[in-house]
Amino acid sequence: MHFASDNTGPVHPKVMEALRRANEGHAPAYGTDALTREITARIRETFEAPEASVHLVATGTAANSLLLATQAAPWQTVFCSRAAHIHEDECNAPEFYSGGAKLTLVETEAGRMTPAGLRAAIGAEETRDIHGPQRGPVSITQASEAGTVHTLEELATLTGIARDHGLPVHMDGARFANALVHLGCTPAEMSWKAGIDLLSFGGTKNGLMGVEAAILFDPAKDREFQLRRKRGAQLFSKHRYLAAQMHAYLADGLWLEMAGAANAACRHLAEGLERVPQARLIRRPQANILFAELPRATHRRLLAARAQYHLWGAALDGGPEEEPLTARFVTDWSARTEDTERFLALL
Amino acid sequence: MHFASDNTGPVHPKVMEALRRANEGHAPAYGTDALTREITARIRETFEAPEASVHLVATGTAANSLLLATQAAPWQTVFCSRAAHIHEDECNAPEFYSGGAKLTLVETEAGRMTPAGLRAAIGAEETRDIHGPQRGPVSITQASEAGTVHTLEELATLTGIARDHGLPVHMDGARFANALVHLGCTPAEMSWKAGIDLLSFGGTKNGLMGVEAAILFDPAKDREFQLRRKRGAQLFSKHRYLAAQMHAYLADGLWLEMAGAANAACRHLAEGLERVPQARLIRRPQANILFAELPRATHRRLLAARAQYHLWGAALDGGPEEEPLTARFVTDWSARTEDTERFLALL
Amino acid sequence: MHFASDNTGPVHPKVMEALRRANEGHAPAYGTDALTREITARIRETFEAPEASVHLVATGTAANSLLLATQAAPWQTVFCSRAAHIHEDECNAPEFYSGGAKLTLVETEAGRMTPAGLRAAIGAEETRDIHGPQRGPVSITQASEAGTVHTLEELATLTGIARDHGLPVHMDGARFANALVHLGCTPAEMSWKAGIDLLSFGGTKNGLMGVEAAILFDPAKDREFQLRRKRGAQLFSKHRYLAAQMHAYLADGLWLEMAGAANAACRHLAEGLERVPQARLIRRPQANILFAELPRATHRRLLAARAQYHLWGAALDGGPEEEPLTARFVTDWSARTEDTERFLALL
Amino acid sequence: MHFASDNTGPVHPKVMEALRRANEGHAPAYGTDALTREITARIRETFEAPEASVHLVATGTAANSLLLATQAAPWQTVFCSRAAHIHEDECNAPEFYSGGAKLTLVETEAGRMTPAGLRAAIGAEETRDIHGPQRGPVSITQASEAGTVHTLEELATLTGIARDHGLPVHMDGARFANALVHLGCTPAEMSWKAGIDLLSFGGTKNGLMGVEAAILFDPAKDREFQLRRKRGAQLFSKHRYLAAQMHAYLADGLWLEMAGAANAACRHLAEGLERVPQARLIRRPQANILFAELPRATHRRLLAARAQYHLWGAALDGGPEEEPLTARFVTDWSARTEDTERFLALL
Repeated sequence: MHFASDNTGPVHPKVMEALRRANEGHAPAYGTDALTREITARIRETFEAPEASVHLVATGTAANSLLLATQAAPWQTVFCSRAAHIHEDECNAPEFYSGGAKLTLVETEAGRMTPAGLRAAIGAEETRDIHGPQRGPVSITQASEAGTVHTLEELATLTGIARDHGLPVHMDGARFANALVHLGCTPAEMSWKAGIDLLSFGGTKNGLMGVEAAILFDPAKDREFQLRRKRGAQLFSKHRYLAAQMHAYLADGLWLEMAGAANAACRHLAEGLERVPQARLIRRPQANILFAELPRATHRRLLAARAQYHLWGAALDGGPEEEPLTARFVTDWSARTEDTERFLALL
Repeated sequence: MHFASDNTGPVHPKVMEALRRANEGHAPAYGTDALTREITARIRETFEAPEASVHLVATGTAANSLLLATQAAPWQTVFCSRAAHIHEDECNAPEFYSGGAKLTLVETEAGRMTPAGLRAAIGAEETRDIHGPQRGPVSITQASEAGTVHTLEELATLTGIARDHGLPVHMDGARFANALVHLGCTPAEMSWKAGIDLLSFGGTKNGLMGVEAAILFDPAKDREFQLRRKRGAQLFSKHRYLAAQMHAYLADGLWLEMAGAANAACRHLAEGLERVPQARLIRRPQANILFAELPRATHRRLLAARAQYHLWGAALDGGPEEEPLTARFVTDWSARTEDTERFLALL
Repeated sequence: MHFASDNTGPVHPKVMEALRRANEGHAPAYGTDALTREITARIRETFEAPEASVHLVATGTAANSLLLATQAAPWQTVFCSRAAHIHEDECNAPEFYSGGAKLTLVETEAGRMTPAGLRAAIGAEETRDIHGPQRGPVSITQASEAGTVHTLEELATLTGIARDHGLPVHMDGARFANALVHLGCTPAEMSWKAGIDLLSFGGTKNGLMGVEAAILFDPAKDREFQLRRKRGAQLFSKHRYLAAQMHAYLADGLWLEMAGAANAACRHLAEGLERVPQARLIRRPQANILFAELPRATHRRLLAARAQYHLWGAALDGGPEEEPLTARFVTDWSARTEDTERFLALL
Repeated sequence: MHFASDNTGPVHPKVMEALRRANEGHAPAYGTDALTREITARIRETFEAPEASVHLVATGTAANSLLLATQAAPWQTVFCSRAAHIHEDECNAPEFYSGGAKLTLVETEAGRMTPAGLRAAIGAEETRDIHGPQRGPVSITQASEAGTVHTLEELATLTGIARDHGLPVHMDGARFANALVHLGCTPAEMSWKAGIDLLSFGGTKNGLMGVEAAILFDPAKDREFQLRRKRGAQLFSKHRYLAAQMHAYLADGLWLEMAGAANAACRHLAEGLERVPQARLIRRPQANILFAELPRATHRRLLAARAQYHLWGAALDGGPEEEPLTARFVTDWSARTEDTERFLALL
């Protein structure tokens, strides 16, 4: 009954096997090895972006912060949703890497910036010449922290607003695969074809040990990115082990298979909860995150039975037993049907 | 014939095996897992430092920069050798993480700061009240980038000078194990007992995939370190895989065994070179790095035969064939005797 | 008809005279002169704070940023109103000086954070351990950017909330004098006695050429402040000319006299506007700033007649002539009754 | 007997008078006033640089740091002399403003980088791809901190070396006027015609209250400079008072007259010292700074007689009375012949 996060499960055996295979003989360090060259080509191919600047880092926060820093001058502000990981869960890493840029929180519905909100937020800046923060990149999380997925039209609308103001767009794709599987489109369609300039292409939350690809579809700042990565202490010496993970990920569609399994498990859980009278889904999950309300007493019972998940903005103690408390449930590639069944049975 | 660096070789099979074993079931993220708790205790035990603040990161530059940033205010200067990795090979990462501190290069002999040089460098600062940079931590590399090892007495002398001025001391121990094996002392003797306050305890250059432990022997800044690590985008979500590597490292003395093998291979190479008339050892290696001069023509032949090593401050082309050019040779745990023999035979 | 800002008017003649008098002979540089020593003592006396750390800088943004940086670690967030100068008008200077801290915008009414809003904003942070930004100082603007003045009770309520969470409180007192005159209390009552720890004590907007005092009522970080000021390139060599201005300011109550005149002029204007049918005061001014709505056509006429003021969040062109547009009017010590009369006559 | 510094003397009466004249009526803030427009044009004219980006700040450290930050990326290093003010006397302000760039100290003779030293220092960087700091701007101080003045040929040689490597050149011209008067050339000849790209054009050390002009001869980064200035809290609201000072400075050659007087006073002092047997000039002064050795006993007598100057790298107490100690003597526009005579008479 593991619904705490998609970073608590095991690494996929095929990824472990790829690491084992990569561990043969010597390889040049710092990303100059053959495996890194190959995976760079493979990612470009996957995204139909033969010129893209592609580099691997080990954490999602590193990918986000380094990419944003190449586009956000310290006197600018990054537009993002109120729930954005870069705002809520990176302990000011984007501010650190950018040298002091600001984040402007845009009106958000179900984890997604609203077009009107984005328009208003952008419009409210650069109204005071050099005195206020200057407009910087827009950052969209796909799939969002609320478990929703922007449609291609929604993406195009948001990136269109950015483009109207000459602003670049970053996508935090920590759960890119989960969103892609939901939409059933191509990686290119959900990124540069939809107006995305910078992509944090996640792997860690989807079965890898710790690898994300930072992609700049316009390679003009490729060198700058590399210098920022090195200076950010994010360049791995034994780089082949990052490359190997990503190799296994993209080989034979493993990444889509894992994301599909995670999404299906989430759907399974959602459907189960919908049948439980005292449960209330906040919304139908589109990826692998689900929010639902359950009475405090029910949470108490579930947690006592060692179900793993997080209450969201609420505390287990200190209120009436029947009070509904929101919880977040996240599934990953390794979710097992019997686990979910057992959980639902407890209800 | 792999002498390019100690980060080009494979990960030790026991480490791979530990990763495989860690890959069972679920584990809480971000360092709250059992394996991380265990390895923290194990490292404290290894260093006879039950109170120490111990945290894992994935690159040596991260360990160095984060540790220095906890002690070096942005208006201070860090004293280090002219050859220090933090100065030469981290692309200003210490400056970045500290928010703009300076590095003061101290007179250096064979990779080690001289006591007189350190005294002079410290004495030359804080002579202009608030106008000049203020004195900050001293950073010592052990084993040094020149392949030398400070004796315990030498360490005590340098840390004593720092202490006389109230300055904390950091040790860049990317090759801590290689130095320790050379000295044959305990980890505590080569660290806090010798006056070291902060230690980057390396694993990556000695058979791990990518793990270093950042140790603050005084845990007062433990929380600050954790916040800096998170904000530095250096906190791994799937933290158990860092812990597992370190586990295998310290279990059954694997770390000392690997460092011993690397040092022995370096000695073997040195002894071989000493018997070659046209070769000149710059100095007897004490750890796993060796510098030697060979005529340009010899380098040309060796490199053509696919020997892997770096010319040091010299170019293969553009001079007389008999001109002696310095090269750096580094060995690691996986070095094979027959490889070295083959290399020496080429000479 | 000069209502554009309180930084467009002339410097008070007594201040010019003080500069002239200070310009005799030689004086040690960088704040070690007698005049600086005297004014430091005088400010401490004015605030009944004999131990306070007091330093002069030349811009309000410098005072705010340097003071906040002494209290806000880069991984923290500063709580401020949505209209705060530090958020809207300093082009990310607080983020720069703090090394990347965040600003959290608190629910605001008439330029003042609401207690409920502050409580909620503080409560929403530090809920995600080290992953989110940590709680940092609270910053209150007195008088506020909306022309309102917090009562002593309101200040005590806000600082009490901060204190309940162990957070220090900064006051942006660019218009401290205007607020003080309105409340009729002592400087100590409106600062440390009300729970303020750090004060930007403004002079520039109230008749000086360019001087603000940065006050830390707890002097523990006095040295750090001085180092931050120097490193921030904010330490004047010919410091006596900053001191001289502040001297004239505090001598014979000139500062209160000037603020009184500015407030009176604002009241005069407000009373006049209240008698004009097509005008609508947004609220009664309490200091020297006033917001009012007038029909577009009226603005057109006034501006054509060279009245100086700013439309606020609105453009002169592009709407119906009768549409009411908000404007900001600011008065300073040099405001002349006949100017205001002339302006009102135009209506 | 005021030889402590050129920032301890009074402001020239014509500058005070200009401030008084500027203090009439209202003027738009933040540099949008007529006086600022005029002085911008005047400075461009003075430098025969009609396109140059010209902005005023109040301290030399601000001019240096802001200009360097426009050219030095955080992963670069600035090449400067060992005695450079930006290294020794700005408490890491260049590091702060650049976001963590490094300073590389170049071999220095009499306050001037040697061409060979500069070539070697540049050559030693960018030898390690992205691992080491990248080459950044060269910064030359004219007149130097040692009181020497680079000839136009010497400037051309240094800037030529920079240009060969594609590096921009900054001139710290805190004492630009003193050097100019010494060389007797035009401002253009000593700046952009000699290969200077960025100039800190000093006024404060030469009779102003506190103004420096930051000049970018290539205006491409004009907007960026303005944003950096604002975010650096260095943009004055009552900007006309900076402009007024600079106006008086450039009107009727006052700046050259003042620098000429300062240089002449220094020469006078030097000639006097040359006639004193126990004194030893370190070198003939070329601008307004002079270094000389005198026996400790003589220093004791001079300082007791209230002569104002600084011992340089030496302490008055703790050595034999006859030991020669170096002192620095600085003269400014207000130096009086009788003062110098009195000083020499004491010898």
